[in-house]
Amino acid sequence: MQTNSKATEINDLGEFGLITELSNFARKQNNSTILGIGDDAAIIEHAGLQTIVTTDLLLEGIHFDLVYTPLKHLGYKAIVVNLSDIYAMMGTPTSVTVSLGISNRFSVEAIKELYKGIETACNFYEVDLIGGDTSASLTGLCLSVTALGTVENGKAVKRHTAKSGDLICVSGDLGAAYLGLQILEREKQIYLENKNIQPELDKNKYLVERILKPEARRDIVRHLKTNNLTPTSMIDISDGLSSELMHLCTQSQVGCKVYDENIPIHNEAIQTAIQFNIDPTTTALNGGEDYELLFTIDKDRLEAIELMPDVSVIGNMVDKEEGMQLITKSGKAYELKAQGWQSFREID
Amino acid sequence: MQTNSKATEINDLGEFGLITELSNFARKQNNSTILGIGDDAAIIEHAGLQTIVTTDLLLEGIHFDLVYTPLKHLGYKAIVVNLSDIYAMMGTPTSVTVSLGISNRFSVEAIKELYKGIETACNFYEVDLIGGDTSASLTGLCLSVTALGTVENGKAVKRHTAKSGDLICVSGDLGAAYLGLQILEREKQIYLENKNIQPELDKNKYLVERILKPEARRDIVRHLKTNNLTPTSMIDISDGLSSELMHLCTQSQVGCKVYDENIPIHNEAIQTAIQFNIDPTTTALNGGEDYELLFTIDKDRLEAIELMPDVSVIGNMVDKEEGMQLITKSGKAYELKAQGWQSFREID
Repeated sequence: MQTNSKATEINDLGEFGLITELSNFARKQNNSTILGIGDDAAIIEHAGLQTIVTTDLLLEGIHFDLVYTPLKHLGYKAIVVNLSDIYAMMGTPTSVTVSLGISNRFSVEAIKELYKGIETACNFYEVDLIGGDTSASLTGLCLSVTALGTVENGKAVKRHTAKSGDLICVSGDLGAAYLGLQILEREKQIYLENKNIQPELDKNKYLVERILKPEARRDIVRHLKTNNLTPTSMIDISDGLSSELMHLCTQSQVGCKVYDENIPIHNEAIQTAIQFNIDPTTTALNGGEDYELLFTIDKDRLEAIELMPDVSVIGNMVDKEEGMQLITKSGKAYELKAQGWQSFREID
Repeated sequence: MQTNSKATEINDLGEFGLITELSNFARKQNNSTILGIGDDAAIIEHAGLQTIVTTDLLLEGIHFDLVYTPLKHLGYKAIVVNLSDIYAMMGTPTSVTVSLGISNRFSVEAIKELYKGIETACNFYEVDLIGGDTSASLTGLCLSVTALGTVENGKAVKRHTAKSGDLICVSGDLGAAYLGLQILEREKQIYLENKNIQPELDKNKYLVERILKPEARRDIVRHLKTNNLTPTSMIDISDGLSSELMHLCTQSQVGCKVYDENIPIHNEAIQTAIQFNIDPTTTALNGGEDYELLFTIDKDRLEAIELMPDVSVIGNMVDKEEGMQLITKSGKAYELKAQGWQSFREID
């Protein structure tokens, strides 16, 4: 006979009991962490270094659907998306705070699953969980993460410093996370219509992993540093290539030419895009959630960039007057348009 | 003829438009702010100082009711409650990030009101708004604030360092915020039953202000520093005196004796507590949201503490074996019990 694993109500444990349980997931890995969870605030020491700060809010129903998002993955991703912002400044993340709004449909075990994911990400990226806040929530799950990092004085790479002529580079491949989400949404609908049908996700493992368990490109930042390659500007791709290009161009007061055929798209993404009747390039431009790095670098560094693993040169910055252009294989130029919140809706 | 002020839908402005509008509320006041809103992350420089980090999550329906909470006050309070945690470590707050989940019932003007409150608090406490995140929300308003501050290396006052024999001190007065909330709830019920009746808040201005627009006790921390008074432990009172005393006693492994008649309670709070048929001491012990500072200090400093404006000595730390005691005027001893989330319910 099987014993059901016990679900503990959060109210049985109480706020302080829950905080004590969750504190066990916080282990110190950085000497800079002077004081972690358990006081009014945490203390970190970054003598001679600049501190980088970024924050992201994840709300149930907007950023994730718990029907197909395991809590452990959600915890992992909540950390990763913040670390990605630190790497996008060429920084080294050191610590995170996690605030949690929890409705009463979550058990203590469920929240611990979430923290296991947070812990796994913290261990992998060598950052310390130094504080947070827990609260009841009337509706869904609400997760707010703030990440801190360090950078040598003056060495942060910003968005506003690209120059006309710079190469435009992107890590990894784009569009897969968006297509992974489409697959999860499709399987959810099928499941809701007939609960006997098990979701078919094996065929699209890569795409599903891209949306559920993205990674931050620490490897790219390390390679750039080790090889003395300093981007002139950098940003991480959370909203889609178009949006991020617009940020770099607008803030740097330049234009860009991006070549369609150079945009890296995974083979599984191309096949699935065609199956969904979407242009693969559109998923790369507007899909979002890839958490790859988009950066510009002086054109003299082309050779070194071409030697970098998992980086594609997709175009170059041009004068502001030329605008933001997407050049197709046949040589036609289209104006690139950036999108924000509505990006997902406009693609369908 | 009166012109209605126009309400702008957030969707008309778009995510990036909204961020641009909100960036206008962020003005740099600290030289430590190297880079603020507008990049992947913010950069601060705190050479030779330790960085203090704290975060708080405020959720509609749990932490505030917009029926009686003006958005400007909410923005102000969201900043203050975080700064209060920095002061409770004897730190100096320098910067905040604000993340916002907004449902579509809020107009751009409403969100700007919220930011006016944030800006007012930032100006008053001389901190910089350096970043954040904006997101749609399916349900209510969700506000997550992280505050950073500085403290001289090793000078932070923690919770676990109180000693038996230390004086227990508290700033301001306690219980008023809880009673202010009771008044707002009562007037809300009256209003919901008959919308022609205007709420009667003038009689209880002090109590209502304590819940809607609390202040962080920067003045107390400044006085302590100026007069070389170093508390042996400190915490801010967000959950109620009992809870906070428990944190200090548990973490410092001591007990406490607190004298009922020494607990500072405002006259308006006493009158209103009686009117609501609640023991005034109970509101001070369990009411919460007062954001006063509770600290312990060596008993040799009694004279200097007695000269401090707006500070009361309410008892002293004792050996752990004696437990946590509340001593009444007649000399009877009661065990103090700490409460968390349920505190408000258990008082009624």
